[in-house]
Amino acid sequence: MNMYEIISKKRRGFPLEEAEIRWVVEGFTRGEIPDYQMAALSMAICFQDMTAEETAVLTDAMAKSGDMVDLSLFGSDSVDKHSTGGVGDKTTLVVAPLVAALGGKVAKMSGRGLGHTGGTVDKLESIPGYRSSLTPEELLRQTMEVGVAVAGQSGNLAPADKKLYALRDVTATVDSVPLIASSIMSKKLAAGARSIVLDVKVGSGAFAKTEDFARRLAESMLSIGRSCGRNMTAVLSNMDEPLGFAVGNALEVKEAIDVLRGAEIPDLKNLSIELAASMLSMSKGWSMKEAREACAAALRDGRAIRKFREWIVAQGGDGRAAEDPDAVLPSAPCSAVLTAPLSGYITGMDTEAVGAACVHLGAGRSRMGDDIDHAAGIRFIRKTGDAVIAGEPVATLYGASDLRLEAALIELQKAIHFGCERPKALPLIIDVLRG
Amino acid sequence: MNMYEIISKKRRGFPLEEAEIRWVVEGFTRGEIPDYQMAALSMAICFQDMTAEETAVLTDAMAKSGDMVDLSLFGSDSVDKHSTGGVGDKTTLVVAPLVAALGGKVAKMSGRGLGHTGGTVDKLESIPGYRSSLTPEELLRQTMEVGVAVAGQSGNLAPADKKLYALRDVTATVDSVPLIASSIMSKKLAAGARSIVLDVKVGSGAFAKTEDFARRLAESMLSIGRSCGRNMTAVLSNMDEPLGFAVGNALEVKEAIDVLRGAEIPDLKNLSIELAASMLSMSKGWSMKEAREACAAALRDGRAIRKFREWIVAQGGDGRAAEDPDAVLPSAPCSAVLTAPLSGYITGMDTEAVGAACVHLGAGRSRMGDDIDHAAGIRFIRKTGDAVIAGEPVATLYGASDLRLEAALIELQKAIHFGCERPKALPLIIDVLRG
Repeated sequence: MNMYEIISKKRRGFPLEEAEIRWVVEGFTRGEIPDYQMAALSMAICFQDMTAEETAVLTDAMAKSGDMVDLSLFGSDSVDKHSTGGVGDKTTLVVAPLVAALGGKVAKMSGRGLGHTGGTVDKLESIPGYRSSLTPEELLRQTMEVGVAVAGQSGNLAPADKKLYALRDVTATVDSVPLIASSIMSKKLAAGARSIVLDVKVGSGAFAKTEDFARRLAESMLSIGRSCGRNMTAVLSNMDEPLGFAVGNALEVKEAIDVLRGAEIPDLKNLSIELAASMLSMSKGWSMKEAREACAAALRDGRAIRKFREWIVAQGGDGRAAEDPDAVLPSAPCSAVLTAPLSGYITGMDTEAVGAACVHLGAGRSRMGDDIDHAAGIRFIRKTGDAVIAGEPVATLYGASDLRLEAALIELQKAIHFGCERPKALPLIIDVLRG
Repeated sequence: MNMYEIISKKRRGFPLEEAEIRWVVEGFTRGEIPDYQMAALSMAICFQDMTAEETAVLTDAMAKSGDMVDLSLFGSDSVDKHSTGGVGDKTTLVVAPLVAALGGKVAKMSGRGLGHTGGTVDKLESIPGYRSSLTPEELLRQTMEVGVAVAGQSGNLAPADKKLYALRDVTATVDSVPLIASSIMSKKLAAGARSIVLDVKVGSGAFAKTEDFARRLAESMLSIGRSCGRNMTAVLSNMDEPLGFAVGNALEVKEAIDVLRGAEIPDLKNLSIELAASMLSMSKGWSMKEAREACAAALRDGRAIRKFREWIVAQGGDGRAAEDPDAVLPSAPCSAVLTAPLSGYITGMDTEAVGAACVHLGAGRSRMGDDIDHAAGIRFIRKTGDAVIAGEPVATLYGASDLRLEAALIELQKAIHFGCERPKALPLIIDVLRG
């Protein structure tokens, strides 16, 4: 094997052999293939793409580059979900206990991540006492006993992906369907669940700005999962505005609790039910109709919020969050209100800019290792399509200081578009692709 | 400036600004831009190309990354030539003294290089005593006094190109028109001549396998040279078989001396005259007809070979080489003959494989730093288009041992194609592009 020949082959548009891909991943992980050759190969892949077979092999090789979590004791009940990331996306907080309440087993490892708000683990850490670092044994035991455990990513999961992602991140080779799909799926495969649901976000607040790109990404991930024997579903969901009304760690936890207690927050509730039902349908063999009804019932009759409480308490968190989140979750000392500049409608949002406003507030990180203000964030009062009267409040911003609020307010003003015509309503769930 | 943004911009197909390109070259040369980012940018350039303006700026920035030779004391007389490389290409040995005999000033720095035979400097070093390491002052003084000096590349000429080429060589990003053109021209610009002739080889023994690629490369280099105020000519010449009959360092020196003494070796003589005449036409303002006639006369009446002798002696070499090369140049202890396997014609050659046979003989390097056997090589008796009778000698191989000869013979047998139909004669000079 010869890295030069492999780069040259991909550059000329030929598919790589399985043995070549495995040799590259192993050599790169061990540090025998230098970064500059891997950067050149990554850029060639960005231009020449990879076949479904190549992508599946790349993913499998990266998954096997480190520890593989064994969830076989849960049989077909082990389920996982992954979101490609969006603003205000707190579905895991709803979906994980909801699925567990109905017999699914969710042993989830979640990232912290950069961006507008933290990852799921950061959100959960706004609950006093919540312990996100579990040993693999603790994760398994809690999943066995409670049905759900969510921990920060630990151990040596897909180190090849970690190393490759860091390189792609500085060489402008991130946005390539096979490279993104293999990065996501290598971690999911290593995390061990039999059934996986993918929430692929599309829109101004998502990595995938177009439906076409999102669809190709979803299909690539489904194909990888299938070829590795996993049950797969991908939901394409709209991210042209934040999901729900809350953006920011504690604010999002509170909103998730509201939904778990039966509140009607249509987009968050509907997407959570669709994701949870897909997981249960795959793992339990239920029809989607049965699964959706079971989810709605569990939200209605209190099983979902009780499972949430049980999970939080099992991980050391303050269980009172389930009954009275305002009493337990941190709240910000300062707030400001964004008002409508005219009478008319909210015609759209630059959702990424909403995220940027949250970073100004301290709700997200701009560099790895930055501290997060769990109490900071934005609560929307009106969203896209809503009628507004000039001067009425549209969103409340929360933060640690007036300085932060001012910067965020300027950003948020630019992010929300007002006009005289009611915009066309966009469907929340654009499509569901089943593996 | 931000390297990520620059890579991303090129990846998306946008031209880079002059300031961006200069920032990249300077940062990379100083080691501030890491190899992996430069490798990604190079691969993106391979796919997205560069405009003429971008290529000229890249070349200028690389030329100015180190020393710039000042040949202004020679006014418009300073001339240089560059060949993109071919098998049996000894034109510099003819052209340099021929041009000097007619009043041109050739202060040439030449590489050693990898490949079938050494570079021009390696060839010259088969003449006992020839000293190829000159100080910049020695190079200038000799050019002033004799009109010609050929030294190995020394000093700090275009270090950015040196570093970038080494990276491209291991990342499969060599064959890109703007990257090749800027690499060649950065060194030529730094070497200081006012008029430059490029011999762009096309065919099975050349880097450019197709006329289209060679033409694009030639045009790119002409455009760079023009935009930096140099007089430029590019000759596209055939490299579907070796140039002349000799391949190998001392063998090629002997053949060049033969031509300088007036021998009729049509392809070598004609191409040498075309190149020399182009150099003189640009520097002296002669018409091409005048210049060709002057060259032919200088070969005929002994001025060319006398200038050759003067040059060699000035650089410490044994001047008797000019009169009796066989007495002075090294000769190989062993030889073998390749015979025709059938009666018919030589229908073609895989010229690169002829070069590979020479490496087996020890005439070329496969790794930098390898020693070269100056006496080793191949002398053809018949060439493409010639009629042959089964069993008659077609080429003689020279080497240090029978082992080397055997390996080379097997390679050479595969390289020469025989058949019953006379192949169509190909023109030696495909086109001449004038800047």
